[in-house]
Amino acid sequence: MSDNRTEVSTLGEFGLIDHLTKNIEIQNASTIIGVGDDAAVIDHFGKQTVVTNDLLLEGVHFDLMYTPLKHLGYKTIVVNVSDICAMNATPTHVILGLGFSNRFSLEALEEFYEGVYAACEKYGVDLIGGDTTSSQKGFIISCTAIGEVAPDKYVKRSGARKGDLLCVTGDLGGAFLGLTLLEREKKIFMESPGVQPDLEGEKYIVGRILKPEARKDIIEFFANNDITPTSMIDVSDGLSSEILHICKNSQVGCVLYEEKIPIAEESRMAAFKFNLDPTACALSGGEDYELLFTMKQDDYDKITLSEQISVIGYITDPDAGAHIITKGGGKHPITAQGWNALKGE
Amino acid sequence: MSDNRTEVSTLGEFGLIDHLTKNIEIQNASTIIGVGDDAAVIDHFGKQTVVTNDLLLEGVHFDLMYTPLKHLGYKTIVVNVSDICAMNATPTHVILGLGFSNRFSLEALEEFYEGVYAACEKYGVDLIGGDTTSSQKGFIISCTAIGEVAPDKYVKRSGARKGDLLCVTGDLGGAFLGLTLLEREKKIFMESPGVQPDLEGEKYIVGRILKPEARKDIIEFFANNDITPTSMIDVSDGLSSEILHICKNSQVGCVLYEEKIPIAEESRMAAFKFNLDPTACALSGGEDYELLFTMKQDDYDKITLSEQISVIGYITDPDAGAHIITKGGGKHPITAQGWNALKGE
Repeated sequence: MSDNRTEVSTLGEFGLIDHLTKNIEIQNASTIIGVGDDAAVIDHFGKQTVVTNDLLLEGVHFDLMYTPLKHLGYKTIVVNVSDICAMNATPTHVILGLGFSNRFSLEALEEFYEGVYAACEKYGVDLIGGDTTSSQKGFIISCTAIGEVAPDKYVKRSGARKGDLLCVTGDLGGAFLGLTLLEREKKIFMESPGVQPDLEGEKYIVGRILKPEARKDIIEFFANNDITPTSMIDVSDGLSSEILHICKNSQVGCVLYEEKIPIAEESRMAAFKFNLDPTACALSGGEDYELLFTMKQDDYDKITLSEQISVIGYITDPDAGAHIITKGGGKHPITAQGWNALKGE
Repeated sequence: MSDNRTEVSTLGEFGLIDHLTKNIEIQNASTIIGVGDDAAVIDHFGKQTVVTNDLLLEGVHFDLMYTPLKHLGYKTIVVNVSDICAMNATPTHVILGLGFSNRFSLEALEEFYEGVYAACEKYGVDLIGGDTTSSQKGFIISCTAIGEVAPDKYVKRSGARKGDLLCVTGDLGGAFLGLTLLEREKKIFMESPGVQPDLEGEKYIVGRILKPEARKDIIEFFANNDITPTSMIDVSDGLSSEILHICKNSQVGCVLYEEKIPIAEESRMAAFKFNLDPTACALSGGEDYELLFTMKQDDYDKITLSEQISVIGYITDPDAGAHIITKGGGKHPITAQGWNALKGE
């Protein structure tokens, strides 16, 4: 952050929005009206429109003590883009609503928007609305993302069928381990403020929590290889929770193989240091923003083209329930402990 | 509010959303997927999509001491629907994000949603996403509204031209006077908790602030009578501020006649009681959610069909600036004092 501090009040609300949005470059032909009117107008003729919204609150979803505002801006866009991708749609537009108290300077907001613009550029989306408001306390972020999909090509959580393969992209558990590390360093800092954080060698897991990416590349891979998943969801609350969502919504059961769950070597190392089970981190940690999906067995050959996709199990009858087969050969029901449960350990 | 109190935590996050959204009845054929997936899908084939978002914060935008949650839910939808109408578009969908601390019970949230559903029914919009999250403090509402408009029939703030008539719907200043009354009663109550509020005879102005309506009827009137305004904005920050937005965005000036500004008799009476100038309330008070628009003089005959529309002035060259001609014949520049300035009086 720069040393300069400009009070937001010197610009006024409308001046602030003008200032923060003046450098927007429109990337989508479908953007007819962007920031600066009562509403934005988009044109998705011949396509269906996909919309999602997320509310992110300081102290609940992020801690500004170890989250740089630029990263937070980037992540805000990524989290919403990820939801659009999870519908097998292409993200096209975002609208931001920000609430902040007067402890935030203009320079701080500019930093946040820098991250927003970086993510918009990376994912090819246009910021078409930017509302700001004062808050009594804390930083409040509301983000709406919009995408497009060819008619009826969207993928819901409810389409998984018996015999389908259960797949996931990238690797899991890293974001939770990154958060664990940052929380530990924060605690040390609070107790001995002179001590500087030791994040050496932990770049991967810290990056997973502070600067995640959405799997738009996978949506493009699906399109290029003529793959339509039967169901899909993004991994924001942990693998267990997402698998149970698909099972519930599709009214199916599943078998998951522990040994097939993709976990990065950096995450295994970190888990070892923290005395955590890497599999538990993948199952119950969240915020990896990978895609969990099911597909017909016939499409198996097509996905072997991507190193980013792991087959981790298969779909069964609902009566069979949702189970994990551990490395030792044990069979246990999958339970949705989620992030919060793990945090409490 | 009911005497029962159910802790939200007994349902869990997903259970809560299920509970609050289980009775949704879809009203629009364009709603393909609503609540319950990563994102919603809508189909506006052959139309353009209009999107807006508002963030409403307890203590900044509303005071729960005198705002019933049901009214707040209703108003949340109205405020966003109003922005869609201000684009000359038809509202079709809304997405809600709610943050609340554990002081809110399930019954309180149900009450809020009752108001949301009442407004959705009234305006024919579908709730297609409902995210909830815990907050450390206060009630936080993020609402995204979506609408549709025939290709290129949207109306921006920037289309006003010299000679156009300046018009406004309904009447102005009532919401500000209602708020003034409620703030006064709150102050009395804080000083002498035994005293019950005296709102008798003030139903109109209290209704204007607590349960405003969006002018969807005017958009329908425009369509039925083949009127396309040249520019439009909704009156959320006060007439002065909105007129200046249109002048700035359209690069024009204007003349506004004080005597033409529509003010309800109930508002005049209340202003008299509070020693306030009714015109100042209309100019600088906000939240009336009426529509301010400009149109070609040729369309004048068409708007005389509606008693809900007042011609209050006309558009001039930009060099002439924006002025108000007072009842006494004086000519003064229009300044955007807005709501906050008036509040401080």
